[in-house]
Amino acid sequence: MTQTPATPSRRTRLSTEREHELYEAVLELLREHGYESLTMDAVAARTRASKATLYRQWQGKPRLVATALRHAKTAAQPDPDTGSLRGDLLELARCGMRDAEHDHALMRGLAHAAHANPELHQALRELLVLPEAERLEALLQQAVERGEVAAGTPALEFVPHMFFGAFIGRDLIEGRPPDLDYLTSYLDAVVLPALGIR
Amino acid sequence: MTQTPATPSRRTRLSTEREHELYEAVLELLREHGYESLTMDAVAARTRASKATLYRQWQGKPRLVATALRHAKTAAQPDPDTGSLRGDLLELARCGMRDAEHDHALMRGLAHAAHANPELHQALRELLVLPEAERLEALLQQAVERGEVAAGTPALEFVPHMFFGAFIGRDLIEGRPPDLDYLTSYLDAVVLPALGIR
Repeated sequence: MTQTPATPSRRTRLSTEREHELYEAVLELLREHGYESLTMDAVAARTRASKATLYRQWQGKPRLVATALRHAKTAAQPDPDTGSLRGDLLELARCGMRDAEHDHALMRGLAHAAHANPELHQALRELLVLPEAERLEALLQQAVERGEVAAGTPALEFVPHMFFGAFIGRDLIEGRPPDLDYLTSYLDAVVLPALGIR
Repeated sequence: MTQTPATPSRRTRLSTEREHELYEAVLELLREHGYESLTMDAVAARTRASKATLYRQWQGKPRLVATALRHAKTAAQPDPDTGSLRGDLLELARCGMRDAEHDHALMRGLAHAAHANPELHQALRELLVLPEAERLEALLQQAVERGEVAAGTPALEFVPHMFFGAFIGRDLIEGRPPDLDYLTSYLDAVVLPALGIR
């Protein structure tokens, strides 16, 4: 638990540093209490921000939490650029694994909460799932431009689905979390062949 | 809501019909109350069974519920046998869709409950997920024997994961449930090419 310095003079317009502090504090509180027990009061107290500021900026808990998670993800992960689709996808998988291991309990808790909370579901979809799908799309586009994958290959639009299946399926079918060996096998057995790369 | 006739003379050793009645009653109660609010007392009352019988036979609520779902699935779905892997997989997808539509709210509720309940998670995995994975494996084995898929194709072991990805990914990425057109496209774009069928 780090201490979050207060900067009361910047309550209305948030600087990048102040936003970063706020997101860090939200993630800390999430790890401590879980989503259901996290209150905007606790965020306001920990960050010495006014609740009015929090609501003005993020509307409510679902968007604040999803934005904090998005922020942590973006800060940690530059776009992969290894020169090959296999390398890029492995790099993404490696980052996904690291995130999943680092905040496994937190993400499970959020998935649980999102089942019963459409607003949180929507915020997570919009701020975590869709940006990841777009990142993937950009990598695939580069592979098409390099001539690694034929333009119009039908599997292109399903690559995010394949990856979700890999992450979720391991847990569901084999009863254990994915690791890098497993994801590498899946990439070589499923994703690349479906894209016509063997 | 159908009425479940009581057969009090068969409390200790359950006939197939009696088991069927019991499972139907459990599913009815599940649809009415959801998993969390379902009690073994309610099951005992609705089915005029003793709680001792219920616990002796199914240990507790998680296994009773998972077994009832399994029973409904098996009763409704004969193994597909269309003569081609594409036909068989489409048939499975069609059945999966029908189940998903029929009991969408119930299955979402169960997935939610399973997040917080390892015993339920385990029972659903053992009685619903793994038997489906095995069914799929049997169909794939037949396709290998027919010469449609080369033995040892690496994607063979990941077909269940691909399908889970298709079902879950649509909802997560596109924000809507899968339909048959979508599953057909996914089969033709991902599953069959990964297996070397184009």
